[in-house]
Parts: sequence; structure tokens; C-alpha cells
Amino acid sequence: MKRIKQKVYDVIGGGQTKASNIFDGIIISLIIINIIMVIADTFKLPEYVQSIFNVIENISVIIFTIEYILRLWTSDCIYPELSPLRARIKYIFSFMAIIDLVAILPFYFPLAITVDLRVLRALRIIRLLRIFKISRYTDALASIGEVFKSKKNELFSSVMVVGLLMIMSAVVMYNVENAAQPDAFDNAFSALWWAIATFTTVGYGDIYPVTALGKVLSAVIALLGIGLVAVPTGIISAGFMEQIERKKTESEDDKKHYCPYCGHKLDE
Amino acid sequence: MKRIKQKVYDVIGGGQTKASNIFDGIIISLIIINIIMVIADTFKLPEYVQSIFNVIENISVIIFTIEYILRLWTSDCIYPELSPLRARIKYIFSFMAIIDLVAILPFYFPLAITVDLRVLRALRIIRLLRIFKISRYTDALASIGEVFKSKKNELFSSVMVVGLLMIMSAVVMYNVENAAQPDAFDNAFSALWWAIATFTTVGYGDIYPVTALGKVLSAVIALLGIGLVAVPTGIISAGFMEQIERKKTESEDDKKHYCPYCGHKLDE
Amino acid sequence: MKRIKQKVYDVIGGGQTKASNIFDGIIISLIIINIIMVIADTFKLPEYVQSIFNVIENISVIIFTIEYILRLWTSDCIYPELSPLRARIKYIFSFMAIIDLVAILPFYFPLAITVDLRVLRALRIIRLLRIFKISRYTDALASIGEVFKSKKNELFSSVMVVGLLMIMSAVVMYNVENAAQPDAFDNAFSALWWAIATFTTVGYGDIYPVTALGKVLSAVIALLGIGLVAVPTGIISAGFMEQIERKKTESEDDKKHYCPYCGHKLDE
Amino acid sequence: MKRIKQKVYDVIGGGQTKASNIFDGIIISLIIINIIMVIADTFKLPEYVQSIFNVIENISVIIFTIEYILRLWTSDCIYPELSPLRARIKYIFSFMAIIDLVAILPFYFPLAITVDLRVLRALRIIRLLRIFKISRYTDALASIGEVFKSKKNELFSSVMVVGLLMIMSAVVMYNVENAAQPDAFDNAFSALWWAIATFTTVGYGDIYPVTALGKVLSAVIALLGIGLVAVPTGIISAGFMEQIERKKTESEDDKKHYCPYCGHKLDE
Repeated sequence: MKRIKQKVYDVIGGGQTKASNIFDGIIISLIIINIIMVIADTFKLPEYVQSIFNVIENISVIIFTIEYILRLWTSDCIYPELSPLRARIKYIFSFMAIIDLVAILPFYFPLAITVDLRVLRALRIIRLLRIFKISRYTDALASIGEVFKSKKNELFSSVMVVGLLMIMSAVVMYNVENAAQPDAFDNAFSALWWAIATFTTVGYGDIYPVTALGKVLSAVIALLGIGLVAVPTGIISAGFMEQIERKKTESEDDKKHYCPYCGHKLDE
Repeated sequence: MKRIKQKVYDVIGGGQTKASNIFDGIIISLIIINIIMVIADTFKLPEYVQSIFNVIENISVIIFTIEYILRLWTSDCIYPELSPLRARIKYIFSFMAIIDLVAILPFYFPLAITVDLRVLRALRIIRLLRIFKISRYTDALASIGEVFKSKKNELFSSVMVVGLLMIMSAVVMYNVENAAQPDAFDNAFSALWWAIATFTTVGYGDIYPVTALGKVLSAVIALLGIGLVAVPTGIISAGFMEQIERKKTESEDDKKHYCPYCGHKLDE
Repeated sequence: MKRIKQKVYDVIGGGQTKASNIFDGIIISLIIINIIMVIADTFKLPEYVQSIFNVIENISVIIFTIEYILRLWTSDCIYPELSPLRARIKYIFSFMAIIDLVAILPFYFPLAITVDLRVLRALRIIRLLRIFKISRYTDALASIGEVFKSKKNELFSSVMVVGLLMIMSAVVMYNVENAAQPDAFDNAFSALWWAIATFTTVGYGDIYPVTALGKVLSAVIALLGIGLVAVPTGIISAGFMEQIERKKTESEDDKKHYCPYCGHKLDE
Repeated sequence: MKRIKQKVYDVIGGGQTKASNIFDGIIISLIIINIIMVIADTFKLPEYVQSIFNVIENISVIIFTIEYILRLWTSDCIYPELSPLRARIKYIFSFMAIIDLVAILPFYFPLAITVDLRVLRALRIIRLLRIFKISRYTDALASIGEVFKSKKNELFSSVMVVGLLMIMSAVVMYNVENAAQPDAFDNAFSALWWAIATFTTVGYGDIYPVTALGKVLSAVIALLGIGLVAVPTGIISAGFMEQIERKKTESEDDKKHYCPYCGHKLDE
């Protein structure tokens, strides 16, 4: 029994064997098909396509349910140091397991309202993160995550300053533009919507200042918005560089430097 | 008396004790409530909400006033090297103290016009900078500020060149587009508004060239606008990298360098 | 015969002689004239201009055909280690040769529909890549390509995450906005179009959220869009820096390291 | 005479004396007043303001003319190694001297058409570059210029690739969208205008695809547009870093490293 479980785990879990790759391929294909269906569902489709979709949907949920049960069953192989029960509880509350569950659960509760169901089905896309199980992408993502982590204080501080600036701009702009455009700048929330569209340089054009003072303020905010890109980019660039340096230093520290002829230790 | 003052200062001022953290939490919460009220005020609210807001506003002003007086009273603890009077005068004219005063003063002069009062209340958001008292954010902000300071000549020069380009583009564009669109490009100020929207790539779409010459000029300006992001980002990135190098060098300088052969300390 | 072929190859192929430069200049000029004609063709032109264009077009195709045949004939000089036949087959399926063929072939099959023909003629612009034959641009492009290659895992991972975010945003946004704007957000494809316009901060303004929830979501997406610029920029910056370091290290490795005391060569 | 000339040169030319600073201040103020007048002129002004402007304009031109003559007279002090005549000829054709001349010449030829005159008056803004005479800004600008110069091949190559992509996108897009929107995409020039607005993420919203194929193409182009920012930013960042390294290495190379106690030369 235990050997079967280990074998199942090798296929659905961490392994890099051929069987494991095939299994991953099937699950990923099924998720992609599901995503395409979620997108296609928003078009007006003929009824026979709808019924095909329903069949595929049902099959998918069954496969995802079996997969979930197998993962739960083999989850004590992930945390061998824990007791089987604790391993399973820990697994149930892990991020990917919750996503897996949310992706199938709504199917069994048809009373949930339609809109929510669709949104929840869209969550299945998160399951594609499984692609990152492939180690070279995991490493790359981990490396990006590490940069964000090492710079989190600088990034949080700059986001904070930008946030304060945006809220202040919005309140000031509401007071400046409200008299001229009572429909567009009808409250501070609309002004905040304008502030974000300007700071991020999206500029849909659904709301913009028309008064001279409003335009001057908007110009200042748009120019500060450049900083919104430049500062985090600078921080992240520096973070990546620092990481490269750190890795190099670590690998150099491993080598000892001695003059191989006179035996002196060479300090760098 | 002096010990009481010191204790009060430890709570409201620089300390990192539990009492100090609770006090900071209360003030920050109160500021956030005030900001939410400033934003909510721009919606049409039922009268009973308005009266609740008035009560909270009054309580906030009283607390902020007491806080301001206590800060003023204990301000000689900040600058122990100055005489009590000079310390207080120095404190009154510090940036944060002016913000603190501006945030409460309008309440005592109800004759000030309504619009200005609202804008001034929005200034209370600046008081949230108090969050940066937490040392890890202060360090991060100081580090960002230091990069800007060390690169201020490069940044100022690039801003200057961009500014000149924008004004020139605006005047040229006004002359090119005015005949075709006398309403949109009605004066150089409108053209400047267009130039800023284009340079920062916001592009609201409320004003844009329609003549062939105008479009060619606009294309050149939009492409130069890429430089508006690339150059400061490059400067800031390099600034962050240089800072990291500097910190590393400083920490290395603290370690003593000895000639490994004769044992003498080496001055770098 | 072989010497003639080598001479022809020196002119049309890899050489940097005067004859070769003149030949390149003629071909590049002809391509530029062709591109101008493709663009000019989209305007309503008087008939006599059209007939001039047809003459130039015919001459161009003849020259390009002769060029193609000569290149094919001399292609065994590119791969001297292969047999003449294999060299030619390898050449026919090289990227630039396919482009060269596609640029002339449609002319000989007038039955192809007009629209496609125009698009294929636009492909002639790719032939301008020949400009990069000039070695200083080849080096620069190779250097940019190398950075992309060395960072391909990080770039792919961040593109992947952004892609997943975009699709999820689109599906969620469709469900949020469809009821309020059934025309604008008519299906998930429209929502995806909106998501891309927002993430890239293009923001045409043809589609944008109008509900409060939609605006909040959109704000979050626009702010994440900043990351869409910051992360790859950071990765690419770091990649360029790493490349510079690598080149420096390589050139330093060429210099011999000797222990300054006993005179022996030091292996690193 | 020669001593007077040298003194005049010290004031209007390269010097950093008090008199020189006052003179620079006057000229810069006059230029700024002129720029404000050029901008104000585009508004409908009452006649008496117009006449005041005319007076200031006349005075400015007289002062600028005197300045130009003095600069020409003292220009042999700039190039002491040349004969006085050659020095003056060289000066006349220097960039700043041409700008200085263009800024005053139109005034003496009132027959030139009004529009051109205004545009030429706007050129006076370039004279503000004189601000960069202040050495700390000259150094900063030179440093930015040096980075662009050292990376010119990489930058040119990436601009080239982007340019080819834009033209190709425009031609393809014209063929895709022309049938659906014959007014918006009326020729390849309009399509090129769209391509630039999309690549630079300005997105005015005056022209955008409406067909499904057009939207897919546009999405690809907008995403590639991110690279338009990321690649040059990365190149420029790396350029600034390399410059910092170079300066550090140069300053380190100046110091010789010897162990000051045992006299051995210390190789790094």
C-alpha cells in the first residue's frame, strides 16, 4: 500500500519522471481547455456547443476531484516528518490546495449564483502556476521574489508616498474641478479614479481636468507619475544587481585562495 | 515635573515603547478616520451621518490640539543642546509641526471659506508620514532620498532639458495646429497641456494634433517621451547601485587591513 | 568560374570592400523606395503616379530576383564545409533567404488576392535588417540578444505571471461590468482587450469600467501594470550589467596572474 | 583695448566672477520674460498690453543684438590659438551663436510671415541652455551625453528594430482595419500615427482597431511597446553604472599601492 502511495505521489507530486510529465501535461491541457471554455462562454454560443461544454466541464470536475483526493491521500509524502493526519491538515490549508478545492467545490453546490460560479471557474487559471513546477521557472520566480523581498521596505515606502500623494491629489482636484464639471468630478472617489489613471499614465480620457488650475495640478501629478515608474524600477534593478553580486561572492567564498607554490594564503 | 515631561516625550516622541506604539496607533487611526470623512463628505450624505461626522471632527480637533500642545511642551527634549525657548521656536517652524498646526488651525477660524477648509483638512494626510517614524521605513525612505540627493544634478539637468523641449514643442504645436483646430489649440497654454499629456504618455485624448505636420511633430515628441522615463530611471538605478557599493565599501573599511607578510596595519 | 563566383560573393555577401558597400547601398535604397511606395499606395494617387510605381515595382522585382539567384549560386561560399548542394539547401531555408523569396515570389503569382500581396510587399522592410550587417550594429544587436537569452527564464516567468493576471482580470471584469455596459464589455475577448490596454498603460479610452467595483479592480490592475514595466526593466538592466562584468572579467583573465613574491604563475 | 576686450569677455563669456553672474542673470531673466511673452501672445490680449509687449520686445532685441556683437568681438578670446578672423568665423558657425543670431535676425526682416516669426521667437528658449554654463550642470549633462555616446550602437540598433516593427505594424494594420474603418485608417500614414501612439503607450484614443484581428495585433504591439521602454532603460542604466565603475577605476589607478612599511608593491 505504502509503495503504491509513493508511486502515485511520484506521478502527481514532485517527481520529474516521464509518467509525471505526462500527468502534468494532461492536467495543464485540461485547465487550458477550461479557461478557453470560460472565455468562450461569454459569447452567445449555439445550444449544441453549450451542451458539449457541459460534458467537458463535468469530465473536468470529475478528473480534478480525483486529482484532489489523490493529492490529499499522498500528502503525507510531502511532509514525512509530520504525522499523517497533521500532514493532511497542513496540506488542506496550503495555497495550491485551497485553489484546487475552490476550482471544484462550486460544481457540487449548484445553488450558488451564476456570476460567482463563473468567477470561481476563472480561478482555475491560477492552477496553471503548476507550470512553474518546472525547476528552471521556479528558480527564476524565486529569484524575482527574493529581489522583491530584499527591497520590500524601499518598495513599501515608495508605494506609501505615492498612495498619500494620490489621495491628496484626489481631494484637492475634487475641490478644484467639482464646480466646473459636477458630473465628472462628482465626488472624491471619481477624483481618485482620475488620480490613478493619471499617475499610472493609463489616461483613458473618460475624466480629465478642464479648468486652468486643474490642468496645472494634473501636469504636476503626471510628471510625478514618471517617478512612480522610475523609483521602483531603479530599486528593482539595483536589487537584481545586488543578488548577482551576492551569488558571485558566495561562489567565490567557497574557493580558498592560496598561492599554490609558496603556500601563502592570499587575501583578496 | 521634568521626569513627567520626559515620560510624556517618550510616549508621544521618539520612543519605541509599548505605550508609544499604542499612542501612535490611536493618532494614525484618527487621521485615517479623518481622511475617510474628507472623502465621504464629497458624497451626498444623509443629515444624521453629517452630524456624526461633525462630532468625530470636533473630537479629532480636540485630540490633535492636545497632542500639538504636548509636543510643543516636550519639544525641548528633542533639542537638549538648545535653551527651552529656542528649542520650542525651532520646533514650531519644523516641517511636521507646521503640518500639525495647519491641520487644526482652520477649525478655530470658521470664517475661512469652505473650499479652503476642506483642502486644508486633506492636508492631515501628510500627518500619516508619521508611519515612517518606524525605523525600517525611515531607513528605506532616507536611502531613496539619498539616491535622489546624490544624483540631483543629473536629474535636474534632464528635467531642465525636458522642460525646455516641452515649452518649445508647445509653442511650435500651437502655431501648427491653431488654424486647423482653433478650439482645441486655442493658446500656448492648451498646447503645453497637450505637450505634458504626450511627454508623460498619459494621452487623455481630449486634445491631439489633426494636421499631418502636427502628427509628425507629435510622434517625435512621444518618442522623446520614452527618454523622459529611460534617462531618470537609468540615473536612479545607477544611484541605487552606487549606494549599495558605497555601503559595502564602508563596511569593508571597518575591517582592518594588514599586510599579510610584515603584519603592519595598512592605511588604504 | 570559381574565382568569378568568389568575387561575386565578396560583393553581395560578407565582404566589406568598396564594391560591396556600393551594392549594399543600392539594395537598401531600393528597399526604402519600395517601402515608401507601399505606404504611398494607401493614398489615392493619380493614375500616372500609379504607372510610374508599377515600373519601379517591376524593376525592383527583377533586381531582387537576380540578387536572389546570385545569392543562391554563391551560397556554397558561406558554408565551405558542406557539399554545394547541401549548402544551397541550407541557404534556401535560412531566415533571410525565406524573407528574400517571400518578397519577390507573390509578383510571379498574380492570382493571389490583392490585400495579401500588399502585406507581403510590406515584408520587404525586414530586408532592411541587412543594415545590421555593418559589424558595429551586429555586435550591438548580438549583445542585446545575449542579455535576453541569459535572462530568458526570468523574463518568461514574469510574462507568464502577467499573462495569467491579465486573463483572470478580464474574466472577472467581464462579470463585473457586463450588466452595466453590455455593449462595451460584451464578452471576455473585449474584457481582455481592455486588460491589455490597461496593463500596458496605453488606455485608448474606447473601453473602461463605469461601476465602482470595476473602477477599484481597474485601479489595482493599472498599478500592477507598473510592475509590468519595472520587473522586466530591472531584469534587463541587471542582465546588461552582468554582461559588462563578464566581458571585463574575461579580458582580465587574459592577463596572467603571478604571485608577486615567488614569481610563479597563479591559476585562478 | 585688448585689456578692455578681455574684461568684457570675462563678464559675458566663461568667467565665474560676480559681474559675470549678474550679466548672466540679466540675460536669463530677459529670455524668460520673452518666453512668457511668446506664450501670452497666443491669448487674446488687450491692446495696451500688446503695446507694452512690443516695447519690451524692442528693448530685448536691442540688448540681444549688443550682446551678440560683443560676443562676436570677444570671440578671439575663446580660441586664442586661432587668428582673430578665423576665430570669429568659427564662432559665427558655432551652435549657440547661430541660435543667438536666429533669435534676433527675424526682427530686422519684418517682411517674414508672422507665424514663422513666432516660431523663431520660441527658439529663444534654447538660449536658456546658457543655464548649463554653471559647471555642475554642464558636468551632469556631459555625463548623460557620455552614457548615450558609449551606448550609441546599442541604442541605435534597438531604435532601428522598433522603427522597422512600427512601419510593418502600420502597413499590416492598414490592410486589416481599412475595410472596417475607412475614415480612421484611411492610409498607411494614419496607421503609422496609430502605431506610434500605441508603441509609446500614449494612446490618445482618436484611432484604435475595432476588428478582432486588429485588436489581437494591437495587443501584441502594445506588449512589445513595453520593450520599447525596458530595453533602452536597461542599456542606459548599464551605461551609467559602467561610467561610475570607470571613474572609480581611474581614480584608483592614480593611487599607487605599496605597503608603506615593508615597501612591497601590493597588487590588488
